[in-house]
Amino acid sequence: MTDTPEIQLPEDKPLEIAGKVYQSRLLVGTGKYHDLMETGHAIEASGAEIVTVAVRRTNLGQNPDEPNLLDVISPSTYTILPNTAGCYTAKDAVRTCKLARELLDGHDLVKLEVLGEHKTLYPNMPETLTAAEELIKDGFKVMVYCSDDPLLAMRLEEMGCVAIMPLGAPIGSGLGIQNRYNIRLIVENAKVPVLVDAGVGTASDATIAMELGCDGVLMNTAIAQAKDPIKMANAMRLAIEAGREAYLAGRMPKKLYASASSPIDGTFF
Amino acid sequence: MTDTPEIQLPEDKPLEIAGKVYQSRLLVGTGKYHDLMETGHAIEASGAEIVTVAVRRTNLGQNPDEPNLLDVISPSTYTILPNTAGCYTAKDAVRTCKLARELLDGHDLVKLEVLGEHKTLYPNMPETLTAAEELIKDGFKVMVYCSDDPLLAMRLEEMGCVAIMPLGAPIGSGLGIQNRYNIRLIVENAKVPVLVDAGVGTASDATIAMELGCDGVLMNTAIAQAKDPIKMANAMRLAIEAGREAYLAGRMPKKLYASASSPIDGTFF
Amino acid sequence: MTDTPEIQLPEDKPLEIAGKVYQSRLLVGTGKYHDLMETGHAIEASGAEIVTVAVRRTNLGQNPDEPNLLDVISPSTYTILPNTAGCYTAKDAVRTCKLARELLDGHDLVKLEVLGEHKTLYPNMPETLTAAEELIKDGFKVMVYCSDDPLLAMRLEEMGCVAIMPLGAPIGSGLGIQNRYNIRLIVENAKVPVLVDAGVGTASDATIAMELGCDGVLMNTAIAQAKDPIKMANAMRLAIEAGREAYLAGRMPKKLYASASSPIDGTFF
Amino acid sequence: MTDTPEIQLPEDKPLEIAGKVYQSRLLVGTGKYHDLMETGHAIEASGAEIVTVAVRRTNLGQNPDEPNLLDVISPSTYTILPNTAGCYTAKDAVRTCKLARELLDGHDLVKLEVLGEHKTLYPNMPETLTAAEELIKDGFKVMVYCSDDPLLAMRLEEMGCVAIMPLGAPIGSGLGIQNRYNIRLIVENAKVPVLVDAGVGTASDATIAMELGCDGVLMNTAIAQAKDPIKMANAMRLAIEAGREAYLAGRMPKKLYASASSPIDGTFF
Repeated sequence: MTDTPEIQLPEDKPLEIAGKVYQSRLLVGTGKYHDLMETGHAIEASGAEIVTVAVRRTNLGQNPDEPNLLDVISPSTYTILPNTAGCYTAKDAVRTCKLARELLDGHDLVKLEVLGEHKTLYPNMPETLTAAEELIKDGFKVMVYCSDDPLLAMRLEEMGCVAIMPLGAPIGSGLGIQNRYNIRLIVENAKVPVLVDAGVGTASDATIAMELGCDGVLMNTAIAQAKDPIKMANAMRLAIEAGREAYLAGRMPKKLYASASSPIDGTFF
Repeated sequence: MTDTPEIQLPEDKPLEIAGKVYQSRLLVGTGKYHDLMETGHAIEASGAEIVTVAVRRTNLGQNPDEPNLLDVISPSTYTILPNTAGCYTAKDAVRTCKLARELLDGHDLVKLEVLGEHKTLYPNMPETLTAAEELIKDGFKVMVYCSDDPLLAMRLEEMGCVAIMPLGAPIGSGLGIQNRYNIRLIVENAKVPVLVDAGVGTASDATIAMELGCDGVLMNTAIAQAKDPIKMANAMRLAIEAGREAYLAGRMPKKLYASASSPIDGTFF
Repeated sequence: MTDTPEIQLPEDKPLEIAGKVYQSRLLVGTGKYHDLMETGHAIEASGAEIVTVAVRRTNLGQNPDEPNLLDVISPSTYTILPNTAGCYTAKDAVRTCKLARELLDGHDLVKLEVLGEHKTLYPNMPETLTAAEELIKDGFKVMVYCSDDPLLAMRLEEMGCVAIMPLGAPIGSGLGIQNRYNIRLIVENAKVPVLVDAGVGTASDATIAMELGCDGVLMNTAIAQAKDPIKMANAMRLAIEAGREAYLAGRMPKKLYASASSPIDGTFF
Repeated sequence: MTDTPEIQLPEDKPLEIAGKVYQSRLLVGTGKYHDLMETGHAIEASGAEIVTVAVRRTNLGQNPDEPNLLDVISPSTYTILPNTAGCYTAKDAVRTCKLARELLDGHDLVKLEVLGEHKTLYPNMPETLTAAEELIKDGFKVMVYCSDDPLLAMRLEEMGCVAIMPLGAPIGSGLGIQNRYNIRLIVENAKVPVLVDAGVGTASDATIAMELGCDGVLMNTAIAQAKDPIKMANAMRLAIEAGREAYLAGRMPKKLYASASSPIDGTFF
């Protein structure tokens, strides 16, 4: 071990999900905005190319007489990512994905969430594994919301999921990444993109996710419930880029003092 | 107290130091680079408009036969901020500022540092107060490196310093802001710009400084000793903007759960 | 919401596992000591009443010609808790528990660990669920090492496990509890004892676990690999008691200032 | 640098202040209790041998017709430590110490606090330096409440203060030690006792202070404003002992994994 450990700089791979390359590493949701206009402006400011929509709560054409989200977030501009928010069983989630595929003319990229209970909206992992398997068999490209258990993340990847989406903290909590260690382990093990999904509260939370080596971040409440959602969307766009650049640049090691020749050793801090 | 406390959004004041307005809120140093070329490229990537130079260690014309930093960092493009790095007494610091003023044709904006000891490079605050007073009397515009003691910061402002520059962590340590609480207090009290000076290690550290309401950040080692300094300079540029935007946007409150109607109360976390 | 939220003081239930009440809330392992003598002294200093032994690595009588741990840690003084360290499948773990029951004359209290991989020694949760079910059916009282996923913890409890033992950080890392949030959630939901198992590095880590409301902590490396294991065993004994008492006493709320009448609100810190 | 850095175990020096040795390393205040009875019981449970009293707010005999604290906290049992809480100038603080000396028959051990403002109750360091100097010249043994600036702490020690008492966080905030780094530096430099004074909120905060190598902790609100002050006093007694023992025992180094042969290097965590 030398004074400055030789950290290999990471390769700058583009974000590729299910065969398509994206420039933006920020994925956003559409919930909790004041109106569709604000939703549209915020998403534009975020620079996101992938927009996730809760099939059970959003009109994608199911109700022909009501405003259709796709009129604001056009599938020709954005990759629409239908999600199964609100589903508490594998069966419900699978059915919801199939409905989305119909409404979106065969679109087979989905974000699977099978929730475990109402308070934290944590995933039910056994049901998630079951649903992922079934959806993959049926031809879906599955991006999967999951706990930060590195072993279950690896299993979801082996099963064929196209992106692993571990939570940083409970959905809507804004607490920031609670367990950086696990997120880091998931990143080290994964060959498909790892996107932190849930828990980001402000810009630095997003930067930290990217510095840990994540390929992107999905968020909704942090933008929609900021005092000024459009400005926060812009902040998040910059924060994601900053974290990505810092990760690629390879940070200086932490030292106890300016004059310390060896990095900090973990006995005190 | 309502469930969502009514946080007044902060005013978006431009960064103005000693009567001049700056677009960039990232200030950079020139030490620890491989060569002057790398220095120049990194500073360009950082977007900085203010570049600080250690008068005692840098050739600003004192040694006519050696490479002059001002050939790379031109005073017509950048605001050159001479600093007193290496000075351990008020007397030395004052003398160094006067030398800088001569070398730079009457330029009177300086960054005062009076160091206390060699290991941490923490400021000697009583000597700092003495030097600041003397320099201000002599017509200098003093930006002052100081501890994060909110009361001493206020005293330096009352004395007439044009910017308060509290340390986040020891110079060159890359540990990130150790005491967010104090930085926040300094920001709340100050009417002149507050710039975190020292301790930033990676992009999220800079974002956090800005989210606390700082007006800017000065850094050197975090860029110069990254594996890829030019990429890190760019990361820092984005990180500063991200943190500023997030601060202005007003973050969502932290909640214990998605479904919690009131913000987190500090009993557990 | 009033200024000082009315936190109900928790009930001071004794630690009862599988029908037996324990005074000590510190459980210890026997690995990584210099010799059996040090093991014995450290365990005595810890005040532990439950001592876990790795059936695959420890001689409990399998090898009649070698030193037997039970000569040092007598089953008449301590509750011996055989564990399945080193098992990577449900099948192996079940077989190991049966071997332990034979060696210990029908003793049916076991600590189940089914590991997922060698680096972190994280549990393989699907295999853990399978093994727990089988062992419970076979009459074992199962204390179960698990991830900090609150939903899987609840499932293990519903299945009939007599204690839930979530990890705080990887076994042997000494990093302290990485996700206090999840540990807290597990405690809130559980009716059986919750014992943090793995990750504690020093006394304050143990105190924090108890302040979160855990019923106890199991540790090995933090004691065995301290410079002075016997002194650290004593430190841990005190730390566990301190944390338990603080939990029962009900801490003051965090405030931004001495003069603040309402607790901290989660917007800044 | 070897895999396990050779940390010298610290010497187990008894706590000696101004020539007197104490068994307990927990110092307590007397404010914010419901009544004198509760004060007495809590102090007894804390095991404290040194009790600090605010001369300006406490009846030590100034008002002969009112209850006298010394009837509950007897100077024959406890070392009474008069403090200058409520003083905002050196002059006031010095006068208050002289009053205390009179009331306490020549007792010359005092705790100096010169406050800077009402919100945080942070010390005014220049006034503190002035008062300390004057008091020491006048024969007082000065224990001094100060900021966590390591250089000013050293200056107070050089001046002759008998104990350095840096704040962990604002008085009454319960936020825990905000800057462990500075507390650690102060400890490394000091030859007189270092006692964290202010900021502790719960037991683990006290344990952490002691693990950093502090010689003791002074607290008041954390005990007095716990739901059950007497139980919390006991928790703090244990927490201080736990932290001291852990410090003396020498903790295991933090590792990234169980199987990691070298301690954590500061690049990621």
